[in-house]
Amino acid sequence: MTNDSSEIIFLGHCPDRVGLDARITGFFAGELFNILDLSQHSERGRFFIRIEGSEEGARQSIQTWIEKFFPIACELDMEYSFHDPLERLRVVMFCSKTLSCPLEIISRWLSGDLRIDLRAVVSNHLDIEPVVKKLAVPFHHVPTLTEKESYERKQLQIIEENRPDLVVLARYMKILSGSFLVAARIPIINIHHSFLPSFIGNDPYEQAYRRGVKLIGATAHFVTRDLDEGPIIHQDVVRIGHQFSVGDMKQVGADIEKQVLASALRKFTERKIIQWQGRTVVFH
Amino acid sequence: MTNDSSEIIFLGHCPDRVGLDARITGFFAGELFNILDLSQHSERGRFFIRIEGSEEGARQSIQTWIEKFFPIACELDMEYSFHDPLERLRVVMFCSKTLSCPLEIISRWLSGDLRIDLRAVVSNHLDIEPVVKKLAVPFHHVPTLTEKESYERKQLQIIEENRPDLVVLARYMKILSGSFLVAARIPIINIHHSFLPSFIGNDPYEQAYRRGVKLIGATAHFVTRDLDEGPIIHQDVVRIGHQFSVGDMKQVGADIEKQVLASALRKFTERKIIQWQGRTVVFH
Amino acid sequence: MTNDSSEIIFLGHCPDRVGLDARITGFFAGELFNILDLSQHSERGRFFIRIEGSEEGARQSIQTWIEKFFPIACELDMEYSFHDPLERLRVVMFCSKTLSCPLEIISRWLSGDLRIDLRAVVSNHLDIEPVVKKLAVPFHHVPTLTEKESYERKQLQIIEENRPDLVVLARYMKILSGSFLVAARIPIINIHHSFLPSFIGNDPYEQAYRRGVKLIGATAHFVTRDLDEGPIIHQDVVRIGHQFSVGDMKQVGADIEKQVLASALRKFTERKIIQWQGRTVVFH
Amino acid sequence: MTNDSSEIIFLGHCPDRVGLDARITGFFAGELFNILDLSQHSERGRFFIRIEGSEEGARQSIQTWIEKFFPIACELDMEYSFHDPLERLRVVMFCSKTLSCPLEIISRWLSGDLRIDLRAVVSNHLDIEPVVKKLAVPFHHVPTLTEKESYERKQLQIIEENRPDLVVLARYMKILSGSFLVAARIPIINIHHSFLPSFIGNDPYEQAYRRGVKLIGATAHFVTRDLDEGPIIHQDVVRIGHQFSVGDMKQVGADIEKQVLASALRKFTERKIIQWQGRTVVFH
Repeated sequence: MTNDSSEIIFLGHCPDRVGLDARITGFFAGELFNILDLSQHSERGRFFIRIEGSEEGARQSIQTWIEKFFPIACELDMEYSFHDPLERLRVVMFCSKTLSCPLEIISRWLSGDLRIDLRAVVSNHLDIEPVVKKLAVPFHHVPTLTEKESYERKQLQIIEENRPDLVVLARYMKILSGSFLVAARIPIINIHHSFLPSFIGNDPYEQAYRRGVKLIGATAHFVTRDLDEGPIIHQDVVRIGHQFSVGDMKQVGADIEKQVLASALRKFTERKIIQWQGRTVVFH
Repeated sequence: MTNDSSEIIFLGHCPDRVGLDARITGFFAGELFNILDLSQHSERGRFFIRIEGSEEGARQSIQTWIEKFFPIACELDMEYSFHDPLERLRVVMFCSKTLSCPLEIISRWLSGDLRIDLRAVVSNHLDIEPVVKKLAVPFHHVPTLTEKESYERKQLQIIEENRPDLVVLARYMKILSGSFLVAARIPIINIHHSFLPSFIGNDPYEQAYRRGVKLIGATAHFVTRDLDEGPIIHQDVVRIGHQFSVGDMKQVGADIEKQVLASALRKFTERKIIQWQGRTVVFH
Repeated sequence: MTNDSSEIIFLGHCPDRVGLDARITGFFAGELFNILDLSQHSERGRFFIRIEGSEEGARQSIQTWIEKFFPIACELDMEYSFHDPLERLRVVMFCSKTLSCPLEIISRWLSGDLRIDLRAVVSNHLDIEPVVKKLAVPFHHVPTLTEKESYERKQLQIIEENRPDLVVLARYMKILSGSFLVAARIPIINIHHSFLPSFIGNDPYEQAYRRGVKLIGATAHFVTRDLDEGPIIHQDVVRIGHQFSVGDMKQVGADIEKQVLASALRKFTERKIIQWQGRTVVFH
Repeated sequence: MTNDSSEIIFLGHCPDRVGLDARITGFFAGELFNILDLSQHSERGRFFIRIEGSEEGARQSIQTWIEKFFPIACELDMEYSFHDPLERLRVVMFCSKTLSCPLEIISRWLSGDLRIDLRAVVSNHLDIEPVVKKLAVPFHHVPTLTEKESYERKQLQIIEENRPDLVVLARYMKILSGSFLVAARIPIINIHHSFLPSFIGNDPYEQAYRRGVKLIGATAHFVTRDLDEGPIIHQDVVRIGHQFSVGDMKQVGADIEKQVLASALRKFTERKIIQWQGRTVVFH
């Protein structure tokens, strides 16, 4: 959760050493910044920190904060960013035929529950077009029957036009090419319909049925070149019984998929996620 | 879950005695009915049973089943019903200002995830009208500033016109009068934004904050004359931490409210609920 | 849960066809047996049933029930069993160095929470001997440094002497040979310290850390010749964060392991599990 | 979780103002202390902080740390403490007849899972004496049939002799008097067998059955003069069905009670809890 009174969020990570907290919080104290929540974690020689709070003095722009902190970041060899908690993230959503995940994101955008600005919905099928259009979200149909290079060029163009902060794959059933990922240059979050690393690949519910598992799950992760191997953001599971057919699992699984995806997006919009070496730090 | 091959669901309850299962399943065997799932439970002298399965012989109508079973029901003093698992329940939804629960039900109706036919949305506010209308659900604005008798008459008229099987209160913030309940004569399911019986009444999140609880919850229940005292259908909770403000609780609470309400409706549409003496039997 | 008034539990499975429930419950009605709970499930042409209840007439022995039902079982080609819910299952427990799972089973045996009769504890290490002996459970040290054939012969001898209904592997770290399984001829339940099929084999917590999962779990399953591939009885997970080291995961994992193992044993003692074709039916 | 490399834990809270983090972490940087985890939270004008880490320079005693920090604490009007994460807390446990919670604590003490030193078990009944004595824990039988003043004097004497850091009420069924609490002057943690504030007082499972709830829970809290009103440390719930009798609820409830109590004690031994105005801050 983001503190209601917070005006600035700071995220950073750098090589660990003694005195980092003092150096960083000293900077904020000098700016008359009141820290409302601070989480810091060190692991394997790396230091991760998230700070949120309010300005006691005059409001300064994000740009000013970035510039003022720059010398410290150089000194500490730190990757860092400043954010306005009230800013809505620009999002482009990729879908296929399944309606439940896309509708969840659209609903939370409409209800204000997710602080996003949904710019466009891209799908390789027409199934969800009527509902999306009714809700006045721009819909782009990009079929994927042609060569990947050709249809990905169209997708990248939509991204270019909408300048999103984030692409969400809401049960988009095609694999993005490495060149797409390079060209897009923004974070991409995918929802996988299994508790990874169980049941990688196709038909996880079919696999789960055959193995007779008693819980099925979903995993939200950043997309990297390695299929289903990107850094995990959030996971959850739901209990199933022997009486569940594959169809039942799909239905119950759809519930957990959309909850997991929505939770991951909330963490992302609250600027609580840092990626590092194939894992994520997700602050509380 | 309902078995994919099921064609008929039977629900019944009566005073318990030896031989009831044999009597009832004997009837179904005589009709060449293949029982795919049977759950039976006895408690405090009452016998509860749910059967679903498929017809090996010629398909018979629900009406035929009801008539054929009638003599046995008389003999056993049993309340019973037969249902078609593919039938969509007609639903009228009551709302106020909050969008998240109504949108969940609408989304699940659109995605086919809930087997319902959403006939009308009634609200005492105009906040959610634009979204509801976009989705082509008939919207009725019934303000509640006048006397209860007068606006409830309008609500009852909408119910009469739509002949729903069920009314859903999706965060409708007014208490229904006893005469409304009598006149409506159909089940009404409400979502309460606390883990009942904790925090009965107003502002449960405010109460939860002050008490410092570590979990907040939601409760779906049938509406009876006693406020927040109706038979509970489903409940769930979510973990919160010390850092959660009342506003944060409301946001996280909204997630659990909509999940609990949707689960309760799914159980209802699957004909898995029997009310008895202030409690519910909810079959798996 | 087992109904407090139940005197007999019946479990059976056979090829599915119309009229099975009527045939079986007709038999019980003829014996003046009052069915308190009945669960029946059909899937892939197989019929599974569990019945518990009380005798209205004179008490009959388990042996009598078995004999009386025999002709019906032949007719239906049914595997079946009758059980006394008050009977304590004779258990032999295999352990290694880890104390937490064995102590959980011992505690629940002492508190009466698990309806078992713990006959012997076998370990290939001496670490847990002092605690086990204090609690007056016979302890057998069978080192596993010699050839498998030789030490398994000693283990089988202990099993022979104690005639258990069940062997529990409470974090026993050796793989049982196929010939051991054949010779033992009783169910063997193992607890695996991961959410199978994730992280099969050694060091699942190390694997989980590297993959950066957000939940870790445990799986109780029947032991078959295929390592970690036996029919799953119960699974559960616990949420972890980025701050969890492998050591932390082991500590939290130990909690979930012992809970999952205890739950699986409770289901087993309540006669709620049927194995069939690599999966389990676990009645509620 | 406590970081494996941590050597010192610092806990503090004081009135909030700008610059507190810088002041405190500046102190630690000056002592060449490497902060491995820092959590800070501000709410309602109060600042809460927990720091753990390792000393880069020479090891200093807890006493030295306390003295060195003293001037800063005076300046900030801060309540604070320093702890050695390897120190075992001295614990006295109060019980009645129920064995499951006491056995859980004893098991976790034996397995090393809880970093405690169990000094004595006090019970007003003799039921659990045999098991406790077998495990070589000093057992004190203090019957509670006499006047409260008289038996509480005996209990206080046992506390005095054992100088515990903590008293644990592991299903002790008597209410401690206000004068006992004053005289004991150490934290007392109780496990209540319901999800507070639901079902305050006697027979919560009986109450839960009548109300027909679908989840039952347990609550670990600090004991204050107001019965069942002390600051909540941890809560959890477990799902139940219509088929659960009061006896079944007690059995399943016992599982959740012992897990909740153990989790609360772990948080306490990890020095993650700060009490403030009837609520607790429990760091992750």
